[in-house]
Amino acid sequence: MATITRSLPNMPTEIRKIIRVGEYADVTSALAPGYVQANLVILPKEQAFDFLLFCQRNPKPCPLIEVMEPGVVEPKITSPGADIRSDLPKYRVFRNGEMVEEPTDISHLWRKDLVTFLLGCSFTFEKAMVDAGIPLWHWEHAKNVAMWRTNIACTPAGAFHGPTVVSMRPIHHKQIVRAVQVTSRFPNAHGAPLHIGNPEAIGIKDITKPDYGDEQPFNPGQVPVFWACGVTPQAVALQSKPPFMITHSPGHMFITNMRDADLAAL
Amino acid sequence: MATITRSLPNMPTEIRKIIRVGEYADVTSALAPGYVQANLVILPKEQAFDFLLFCQRNPKPCPLIEVMEPGVVEPKITSPGADIRSDLPKYRVFRNGEMVEEPTDISHLWRKDLVTFLLGCSFTFEKAMVDAGIPLWHWEHAKNVAMWRTNIACTPAGAFHGPTVVSMRPIHHKQIVRAVQVTSRFPNAHGAPLHIGNPEAIGIKDITKPDYGDEQPFNPGQVPVFWACGVTPQAVALQSKPPFMITHSPGHMFITNMRDADLAAL
Repeated sequence: MATITRSLPNMPTEIRKIIRVGEYADVTSALAPGYVQANLVILPKEQAFDFLLFCQRNPKPCPLIEVMEPGVVEPKITSPGADIRSDLPKYRVFRNGEMVEEPTDISHLWRKDLVTFLLGCSFTFEKAMVDAGIPLWHWEHAKNVAMWRTNIACTPAGAFHGPTVVSMRPIHHKQIVRAVQVTSRFPNAHGAPLHIGNPEAIGIKDITKPDYGDEQPFNPGQVPVFWACGVTPQAVALQSKPPFMITHSPGHMFITNMRDADLAAL
Repeated sequence: MATITRSLPNMPTEIRKIIRVGEYADVTSALAPGYVQANLVILPKEQAFDFLLFCQRNPKPCPLIEVMEPGVVEPKITSPGADIRSDLPKYRVFRNGEMVEEPTDISHLWRKDLVTFLLGCSFTFEKAMVDAGIPLWHWEHAKNVAMWRTNIACTPAGAFHGPTVVSMRPIHHKQIVRAVQVTSRFPNAHGAPLHIGNPEAIGIKDITKPDYGDEQPFNPGQVPVFWACGVTPQAVALQSKPPFMITHSPGHMFITNMRDADLAAL
């Protein structure tokens, strides 16, 4: 993955302090290893009930880590002391479904009716796989995973509907069972795979041409394994063209105070 | 538990049809074994976002099985074809926190702004324990479990706050580990225990005097084991005295089309 700054402090609170004052605006992969990183979606209260319902109905692509009351900027449950307006390295601002700005701070855009959603991220289950001895090509080569829109429809909620986006990792057939087991421990970080094997079965025509991210090469014996992806909630929210929406910039996640272990089901 | 009518059909759809026409108005325990039964909370849209948030933050006492859009009466995800206004044997209607009516049908009270919440119920994890050879005294003696308000505060959300209510079952010390394992499989039906052992540690002064339900006798070697209880969401919702709220009448649950196995995490 992109930039690994080994000289950075490794506690979430310290890292967020550096991000807050604008001294770090890069991707967060490999920062604070063992701590949960989160996808960010901010929507006006007007759309928040439907979006919360959408996440509740589609927990695999949209695992809720924390949802904050309208206007609240401190994620008191997962990250006391943090400020959601300044503690991510980079944001994306959308108006009527179009990106209009990519700032490093959103304090100037804050409103009393904004509801913040923090959603689980693949870093958590990927670390569990690596810890279990399952190699991940994109970790070893500082690349992104490969992602596709599938023919698996999300369960709609109010204005929100759309296809499930998946990420794909080549896994050796001898390690697939173990990969299912270790990722199943983290239902709040996408959990178990959605599909193992045949890409066409879920509507993917060309395994060498991802819709997002980087192509993954296959070694002999490796099989494509697909997980629900955190790109889904943003893609779905954008599709409904909300008048106003803020997300993290891809890879520039919110680093919570939670340990991966706090997120484990068992 | 109370009434076991062995002559009733055992499919949820058939049982709900009989309930719908007013031919069965008793408790639902032991009906449709292996199918998920659910607690019911209906609130106006005005309170629904905060209550949804409360459930999201307190998944052990308030496990969401299905939440329906405002005005929708068919639980399309878990129980297509059902009608939430008629398919429970008995309801409770509250105005400003006071019970005003206990009807067998709520069609006359329906409004376009009502949001229905279906929450997991202890029947699911109790069946898992019985299937695993862990005897439950209240199943064998057709009684209720023992329940207490504890000193474990729920995480508040908007107007909703209050203590966690727990249910207690005496478990032999040789079977406690197994009880933790089998109930952990069902996070959407209260999941693993909240506490094992000392009642005082969670604010329970007298294990022989439950706040709700029946006292449970202890055999030699049995230890009190406590689980988060579905009484919590109703108690908490009532505490905030919503202008209008409908719940199931205790024990008179909604029988879904879902199998217990559909609810299992693993």
